[in-house]
This record gives sequence, C-alpha cells and structure tokens, in this order.
Amino acid sequence: MAATNRAWIFEHPPVGDDFDSALKFRDWPMPEAADGQVLVKNLYLSLDPANRRWMAGPTYMPQIPTGAPMWGFVIGEIVKSNAPGFAAGDIVGGVGTWSDYSAVSTQGLDKIPDMGGLPLHAAVGLFRGPGGTAYVGVVDIGQLKAGQTFVVSGAAGSVGSLAGQIAKILGATVIGIAGSPEKCAWLTHDLGFDHAIDYQREDVEARLRVLCPNGVDVYFENVGGAVGNAVAANMAKFGRIAVCGLTAQYNADRAPVGLDIMPLLLNGCTMQCFILYDYLDRLGEATAKLAEWYGAGRIKYHADIADGLEHALGAFKTLFQPGAAHKGKLMVRIDPSAN
Amino acid sequence: MAATNRAWIFEHPPVGDDFDSALKFRDWPMPEAADGQVLVKNLYLSLDPANRRWMAGPTYMPQIPTGAPMWGFVIGEIVKSNAPGFAAGDIVGGVGTWSDYSAVSTQGLDKIPDMGGLPLHAAVGLFRGPGGTAYVGVVDIGQLKAGQTFVVSGAAGSVGSLAGQIAKILGATVIGIAGSPEKCAWLTHDLGFDHAIDYQREDVEARLRVLCPNGVDVYFENVGGAVGNAVAANMAKFGRIAVCGLTAQYNADRAPVGLDIMPLLLNGCTMQCFILYDYLDRLGEATAKLAEWYGAGRIKYHADIADGLEHALGAFKTLFQPGAAHKGKLMVRIDPSAN
Repeated sequence: MAATNRAWIFEHPPVGDDFDSALKFRDWPMPEAADGQVLVKNLYLSLDPANRRWMAGPTYMPQIPTGAPMWGFVIGEIVKSNAPGFAAGDIVGGVGTWSDYSAVSTQGLDKIPDMGGLPLHAAVGLFRGPGGTAYVGVVDIGQLKAGQTFVVSGAAGSVGSLAGQIAKILGATVIGIAGSPEKCAWLTHDLGFDHAIDYQREDVEARLRVLCPNGVDVYFENVGGAVGNAVAANMAKFGRIAVCGLTAQYNADRAPVGLDIMPLLLNGCTMQCFILYDYLDRLGEATAKLAEWYGAGRIKYHADIADGLEHALGAFKTLFQPGAAHKGKLMVRIDPSAN
Repeated sequence: MAATNRAWIFEHPPVGDDFDSALKFRDWPMPEAADGQVLVKNLYLSLDPANRRWMAGPTYMPQIPTGAPMWGFVIGEIVKSNAPGFAAGDIVGGVGTWSDYSAVSTQGLDKIPDMGGLPLHAAVGLFRGPGGTAYVGVVDIGQLKAGQTFVVSGAAGSVGSLAGQIAKILGATVIGIAGSPEKCAWLTHDLGFDHAIDYQREDVEARLRVLCPNGVDVYFENVGGAVGNAVAANMAKFGRIAVCGLTAQYNADRAPVGLDIMPLLLNGCTMQCFILYDYLDRLGEATAKLAEWYGAGRIKYHADIADGLEHALGAFKTLFQPGAAHKGKLMVRIDPSAN
C-alpha cells in the first residue's frame, strides 16, 4: 500500500487566537523532493511560540504561504534523497511542515547524531532551539555572573525551564514566573529554582520587591506585557534584559501593553533582543555544555508529547493558555514508532 | 546694602504640567555656607528636562525637599568659602538651587576654566551636561559608525542638537525629529542635519520608512512615547537605541505609551539607557573633542537665555511645549552682568 500524507494547511493568518479557522487538517498529496531536496518522513514536530509569529507575517522567516502546509521544526527520517550528502535512512532536523511527509531543501537541515541514552526528541527539545536559545540568552545576551539575581518569565516553558537551570548552574539566585501553582511547584521542587511566582494569582511586582531587595540583575524575557513591566520596575542598577520572546502579545490584535522604559532609564539598564538564528555559531558550545550538564544530572529535560499529527493544533493552543498543564518542551509524535 | 536672596521654592511634586502651584517665587533667607560648603552667587541657571524627573521623586538624585529652593545646575561665583581648595572669586558649576545664592557642598562642584572666546554659559550649555551626554550617547552607547543612519528625537534641544552634529562629524546620515517647522528648518539649514521630521505635523513612521529604506542603525532617544515607537518600527537589523531621556512622559500622570518591543525583537536590536553621571570618566574626552570641533567651526552652539530669575519657571515650561520657540540650550541669566 502506498504511503499517504496528511497535513495542517495554513489557510490564512489567524485573528487573535482563532486558530481553528486558520489551520485545517486535511489529506494532502504526497510531496515530491525536487533537485537538491529530500523527502522526509516526519517523526516529531516541535511546537514553539515563535510559530505564532511566523503565521502573522514575515519575520526572520518569509511569510508562510497560504493554502500549503504550516511550517514547523521537525525531526524525521529521509525516505528519498535528491541532494548530495544526504541519504535515505538519515535522521535529520530542520524546518519542515506540519505533515506526515515534508519535501525540504537540505540548506539548514542537520543530521542528528546518535543521542546516547536520550530520546530522539531531545535533539530539538533540549539541544537545538530551546537549549541553544536558553544558553545564548543567559551567557551571551544576559552576561550573567555568579551571585547575581536572575528572573525568567515563561519559566515552565521549553526555553525558560532550561534558562533557569543554566542560571542556577552559573551561580545565580533564580526566580521563575509561570502561570499556575502546578508549574511553580515544578520549578522549585523539581528544577531547583529558588523561587517561583504565579503571575495569574500573585502581584509580580510586589513579590519581586520582596524577593529581590537589591533588584534583578538579569531578566530573561519570554512574555512581555504586564509581566515584563513588573520585572522592569525591579531591575538593579545596570541590569540587563535579554528579550527572547513576547508571547503575551503574539495573539493580540490590539496595541500591545508597551514597556515603560522609565525605570530602565533611571537604572542605566540595557535591553538586548535576540534570535537564535543570529547566534548559530554558539550552538556548538551550547550543545556541549548542555550534554555535559544533562549527563551529570544537573539539568532536567522534560517534554510533553502529544501523540498523533491530528492533535498538533490542540497542543499548540496550550502554549498560549497560562493554566495549561504542559511543562517544558511541547512536541507532537507524528510517527507512533518514534522513540 | 546687604545682599538679598530670592528663590523658587519647591512646594510639592507637580501634578501633570501644573508647575504654577508646585513652584513659588519668594524672597528667601540668605543661605549660610556650613563647614565644607561654599556660598555661591549664581550667574546662570541651566534648565533641563531631567529637572522634571527630579521633581517627581527620587532618581539618581534624592527626592528634592519640599519647602526649600528647587534644585538645578548653576554656574556661579564663590562669595564665601568654608571648604579647602575653593576660594572667593572662583567660578564654579554644579548642582545648586533656583535662587540668587546657593550654599553648596564642594563635592561634585567643578571649577570652570577660562572659556577662551566662548560665553561662560557654554561651560554647562555646551561642554558638561548636554555635550557630555550627546558625546557619550553617540559614541559609547550608540557605538555609531561612519556610513550609518542616525536618528535623534528632541533634536532641537540642547542634547539632541549636539548629538546630531556629532553624528554628522562621525560620518552618519543624520535625521532629526522636532516639534515645529522652525526647529526643523534650523536643524537642516543651520546645523547641517540631512533631514528633519516635524512630529507635530508629519507621520514619523511613514517618513522614516521613506528616508531610511535600510532602517535606522542608531536612534538617540530623548522623548519616548509615540515618537519612540515610530522610530523603533524602523530600526535596522542589530540597530541600537541609546535612551537618554523620555520627555514625552515626564508630565504624564497616566500610564505612559509604552514601547512595543516586537520590531526590536525581530531585528535583534539593543536598547541601552544611560545617565551621564555614570560616565563622568568620559567627560574629559568629550570636552576635548567638543572644544576642538567648536573651534574648527564644525559644531554650532546655540543657547536661548531668559533674563532674570523671576522668569525661570516660564522658561522651564517651554521645555515641554513642542511648538515653543527655544532652540538648543535653555538657560536663565540670574546675574545681569554675567557674560
């Protein structure tokens, strides 16, 4: 029996959080690998807040074409190669599509090495996007030093949970901001954060004033909006803000809650925005460190895995629901046999 | 006849722009120089937007005490010294009071050297606060390079007008944003800016899109608010924003128009806030360069001088009126005989 293909088709940019009309799940023709491309049988799909930005318009990525499969980071096995250096059977990771099969250019496609004792999904859930972003944000952008106070929002997410653990290893006092008591308990009990603040139930600005009487030295910003302002109001002299994401406003069609710069001005603070794509030369060091720390039991990696491509959209929505139960990296297992 | 003293008394922090009830002009007892202090006969008072922030609460300065003379940067002549190293007849500059006489500590007080052919007020109008802030903002914080595109808001003000001229000397394309056709004409016709945008009458974001098709490399931020967002939306990849002031919100009692960080995130931009007080070690180089450029006719220095201490508040208010006629540095000549 010939293989069949299914895909989430990107109908149009979503309005607010109305994803149900923006993405439709359909049977879809099997893609063909053009010259220089490979045909990949997708094993895992990574779900990331940045995907929401890609839907809205051009970013560091071009606009996603409408009427074609939605884009996402995938791990898969090459079933046919029309590109030199890649062969059927290779396990690869890169930007593909929300579908059973993707035909992709090999530019930007990486062969995934043997993962040792780690599950395959850790190749993108721990090492590449989330781990690389967390490492670059803490080390290069945040320039965190031992003894400093470090705050991260979106702390129970894939990037935030790793950023906080990295900051802890580097000798900081670490405070995570997340959206439910369960997530906060996970941060402090399981991941070793010093404190956690539930922004749905607590006054973030007031809590930080108590927890950080000398101010926040480094803030790893994943959400923006009111939470971002609450932390900005508590920055230490010469504090640094590493802006990695702004999930609070990804679904907003109204003007976002902007950042009040005044407290940053009074303290001579620096805010530096970054995208991992601009720091790919740092991935080698990041991956080596993460592997070392993971191997020594100093970093915990947790992925919430949704089984079945048909559940991709439902899982994706939980990225923007503060009280959603998922923690750490969110993935879809497309091929039931993937480890 | 014994000398008499008058002063602007700081009654309470102003609500919005109601300065008339916040500051009262009164006869006031002659201050006395305590041990370690000097008594200064004030010649000039510098009026700066930052004074508005000082009124609101503690900043890098303590809260201004109520029921006592308002604080401001002054140039004056010592009439009595109770401090080593300072003598009657010395001309000094530092934080004093809006009054005929100030008793001040010599900590932070500078002796003003011979000004050559320049008027005395250039000691604070060109060299120290405005010139130092402009130089540090362009060179250290903005890290401007030849061939880049430089935008400055509050461009007809003391800091902005110097920042734009420094950027021009360093080889940038320079665009100033100001609040009247007269100010814009001054920038392009007299100061050599490449372009000027009247934010009261033009769409700043749209004009920048046309003037800077490749984006703004360095933005020198003096105002914040809607103007700041319009420039932020036009930043180039890896652009830098040097935040020196936020005059648009100094008088605001409502929540300020915050900065939309999204365009900065997409372009990996850095925003660095700074206060000259933290860069006093850079004043030597700044002053030497400014003197060299001024001497070579490459920088123009313009001060609008209000005559008479009684007019200090009226002049101060014009700092926050977009269409006000003043350009460059705003000063009050307290002693009619001052050059």
